[in-house]
Amino acid sequence: MKFVRINTSNGIQNGVVKDNSVCIISGDIFSNWQYTGESVPLDMAQLQAPLKPESILCIGRNYKAHALECGNDLPKTPVLFIKANSSLCGPNEDVVIPCKFTQQADYEAELAVIIGKKAKCVSENEAMEYIFGYTCANDVSARDCQYENGQWARGKSFDTFCPLGPWIETELDPLDLEITGRRNGKVVQNSRTSLMIFPIPRLISYLSQTMTLLPGTVLLTGTPAGVVLGKKDDPDWLRDGERFDVEIEGIGTLSSTFVSR
Amino acid sequence: MKFVRINTSNGIQNGVVKDNSVCIISGDIFSNWQYTGESVPLDMAQLQAPLKPESILCIGRNYKAHALECGNDLPKTPVLFIKANSSLCGPNEDVVIPCKFTQQADYEAELAVIIGKKAKCVSENEAMEYIFGYTCANDVSARDCQYENGQWARGKSFDTFCPLGPWIETELDPLDLEITGRRNGKVVQNSRTSLMIFPIPRLISYLSQTMTLLPGTVLLTGTPAGVVLGKKDDPDWLRDGERFDVEIEGIGTLSSTFVSR
Repeated sequence: MKFVRINTSNGIQNGVVKDNSVCIISGDIFSNWQYTGESVPLDMAQLQAPLKPESILCIGRNYKAHALECGNDLPKTPVLFIKANSSLCGPNEDVVIPCKFTQQADYEAELAVIIGKKAKCVSENEAMEYIFGYTCANDVSARDCQYENGQWARGKSFDTFCPLGPWIETELDPLDLEITGRRNGKVVQNSRTSLMIFPIPRLISYLSQTMTLLPGTVLLTGTPAGVVLGKKDDPDWLRDGERFDVEIEGIGTLSSTFVSR
Repeated sequence: MKFVRINTSNGIQNGVVKDNSVCIISGDIFSNWQYTGESVPLDMAQLQAPLKPESILCIGRNYKAHALECGNDLPKTPVLFIKANSSLCGPNEDVVIPCKFTQQADYEAELAVIIGKKAKCVSENEAMEYIFGYTCANDVSARDCQYENGQWARGKSFDTFCPLGPWIETELDPLDLEITGRRNGKVVQNSRTSLMIFPIPRLISYLSQTMTLLPGTVLLTGTPAGVVLGKKDDPDWLRDGERFDVEIEGIGTLSSTFVSR
């Protein structure tokens, strides 16, 4: 199933995509929900980010080719950082490059995992049972801010720096999907989720040893090679008016326009 | 006023401390609340962390003597990191040292600022208007995990690693308060909030340029010198059964017992 959140005359509502409609639902998508009987044509629906995250946990350097293009050793354990919840951005919503603070805006196409059940100290074998579904993410990064003082949080947390969407796909095997990033239509990132250094079951098990993962936790699983940061000689940072698409096999495409402000 | 959250037979409720009672309130502490008429003697009240944070933003190396004891240069801009919301811990609740993952548990006494109104791009002059109140915090840290791969999030985000309390004091000038950390009753940290490298108005203004600060955002403003990490020659990391108190002038004392598990 594909879960969405849409803006309606009754405020923001959850829905399920069926054929070319969004069927509105009420209740909690993680526990108990019902169809209301209302629906909206999908092409008329104003899609929002498909959930309000409990938190946005992120894994850095989780694809070998990306770690190497950034000049890093391969990590021995998952590199965790956290994006502020306030960085959330919907599909088709503009991503704002805060030009007063950064001249180095970059994209990162990523598979996002949505936790559906409270997970604490779960094994790799049982980890997948705690997943609700999957969506596309762009871990937008202001590289100059990210590397200013060692901690990545600020450079990753500007408002609109976490586009998610278009929906949460719940029926999917995520372990070997094609993931593609397109800049103004041109492929700049292309890899497979099977190339993650720490695969999804390992990430969930590892993180759940540290912290209780609550329903609605979003886990960004790292980006493949091809980001601007990797082009040391001639980095062409994102500029006003550019478009970036994250496409993941079996999910769909998250499309964002960048505006400089 | 002193705002608390307490565990009652009707679940977790907000309250206001008056004399030696907790007067139960209903509604949203940040916008519109009312007394219910019920009350509980303060010494019978089961105090919880005084709010469920929207997010927990933290500033590293914000006191000169602490930056130096850790062998760091003074930061040129505030060093932001984020603790997972799931690390929240109430006053008098045990802090769990996850001995399977860390042999270097440490304390950090800090003043926590609670944002009360949505703040975006506010100036230093107007920053204080966005504050709801203040509480004591302990930014508990597993140093071996914190420094494992450069990003501090994991070592700072184990469950129970963010004790807050005992209450949110709303009537307080925070700019020059005594802050004290006591380990098993012995003073190990003692400083004044006036010694912050980046004072509170500067922090709020700076962060609000990056991200929208929402009501319920908790900002940990950094710890003074005196942490275990600073004792390079003979670090005596926290052990099972130890107690740590954070006392801040005009607020009160947040007391935590550490248990190894």
